[in-house]
Amino acid sequence: MIERISILGTGLLGTSVGLALRAAGYKGSITGWNRGAEQGQEALRMGAVDAVVADGVEAARASEVTVLAVPIFATLDWMEKLGPALTADQLVTDVGSTKRVIAEAAARLFNAQGRAAFLPGHPMAGKERGGAALGDASLFRGAVWLFTDDAAAQRTAKADELVKCWRELVAAMGSKVIDLDAARHDELVAWVSHLPQFTATALSALLEDEVGEAPELKDVGGRALREMTRLGASPYSMWRDIAHTNTEAVERALLKLEQHLAHIRENLRTPGLRDEFERANKFRRE
Amino acid sequence: MIERISILGTGLLGTSVGLALRAAGYKGSITGWNRGAEQGQEALRMGAVDAVVADGVEAARASEVTVLAVPIFATLDWMEKLGPALTADQLVTDVGSTKRVIAEAAARLFNAQGRAAFLPGHPMAGKERGGAALGDASLFRGAVWLFTDDAAAQRTAKADELVKCWRELVAAMGSKVIDLDAARHDELVAWVSHLPQFTATALSALLEDEVGEAPELKDVGGRALREMTRLGASPYSMWRDIAHTNTEAVERALLKLEQHLAHIRENLRTPGLRDEFERANKFRRE
Repeated sequence: MIERISILGTGLLGTSVGLALRAAGYKGSITGWNRGAEQGQEALRMGAVDAVVADGVEAARASEVTVLAVPIFATLDWMEKLGPALTADQLVTDVGSTKRVIAEAAARLFNAQGRAAFLPGHPMAGKERGGAALGDASLFRGAVWLFTDDAAAQRTAKADELVKCWRELVAAMGSKVIDLDAARHDELVAWVSHLPQFTATALSALLEDEVGEAPELKDVGGRALREMTRLGASPYSMWRDIAHTNTEAVERALLKLEQHLAHIRENLRTPGLRDEFERANKFRRE
Repeated sequence: MIERISILGTGLLGTSVGLALRAAGYKGSITGWNRGAEQGQEALRMGAVDAVVADGVEAARASEVTVLAVPIFATLDWMEKLGPALTADQLVTDVGSTKRVIAEAAARLFNAQGRAAFLPGHPMAGKERGGAALGDASLFRGAVWLFTDDAAAQRTAKADELVKCWRELVAAMGSKVIDLDAARHDELVAWVSHLPQFTATALSALLEDEVGEAPELKDVGGRALREMTRLGASPYSMWRDIAHTNTEAVERALLKLEQHLAHIRENLRTPGLRDEFERANKFRRE
């Protein structure tokens, strides 16, 4: 049984974790920390945390489980601070969108004798806009929550118990847990998450150049255009870290998409177009 | 007042037009024709048409307004047949996704002294799958319905009245009417409709190659992936004609998107990525 959780970062994901924990019946304490005061106060008002504190390291020291819900590079900074500050009977987990650099930092700073435990996690849920005010107790319902744990991690019995309990809480929040190797994780999400995002960004930026001056013409595109550009609203601040920490896999995925688009462009009047449609139909078969 | 309408082609769009006419309070007759008997019978069962007939030319001859709701090349074939068969007091309109070739055929075969009237139309509504069974009385509600009429058209007073009444029926179906030049129409829809479709097709076909063998991994992408690939289910049979009749504009749009994707790929670790996100954000500002 976990009784004390702290959430470092009370933006959209951190606030949603707090709300989802309460909705799942978690009865212990939830302490929040946020770099800017406003998002912390919003999370408090929404009931996602019981208290907001100014010192994240102190909050983590006083918790059994600490959830890092900040962008990747900020997660790495917290790992540097918390690794030496916590005991072997404490657990840190995160919600970052790439896992290789985080798994490497975990092996270096956690998961060894005398060190706290670290369980790298990645809920496949979010919204195209961030912020505590959009926090949602049901954000993780029906979503996949990936873990990239290290089989070589050395943990105390208490830390093992915390890992088990955290996995149970994630399932209670409505998520389907899948375990993956960290390198395989980053390759997979390059295809199914990062490529769709960068595609929507490229399409939206291009359309801003071409039809952005005539807002009434956006209506013409209807639902299809709205869907294909919804992720165009996603913030650079979050995706910068993802682009930096999964660069090679994203480069490969983007290059392949450029090649597919060129293939379609060169075959608009040949049976090559049929082949692309048939494979696309296959991906969407039910 | 229009009293006799025929709909040639009772797939998704033709059936939806019939249902939407009834929902809008149209009291006259609706006669359906379809190449395959099954879709015609389905439209009849759904109440989208009052009768299904085997001879489309006869149906058009007996109607004041004929709606062509078939792919572009089939629309052009019907125009060749109907042009000489109808009187100057009859109106033909269509729902095709490109308008330049149809407007050219209309100028050649209709809209002259002694000829029937033709009003090229394009409702910006649809679904990723076709068929009468998906027909929907509210498909056009909130959608834009584009017309690319010819200012030089010569029409009788009766034909002018039919054009006016058809426009009123379209508005009564819940659509917002916008008038455009046919060439401008094709250029605009290349950006806001055809480019998003071919992008979804390319992305879906690529993902079928990369992760299609592991269906459980599709869940990982969540809502973002589902949205970005929904149009991947669209049928080649419809898009072939669009690709053939708007080739140059679609080629230009695809090439520009390839360039944007390459720019993102080459700038994953530079401020160039920020620029793309900021322009994309601007397109989606509310």
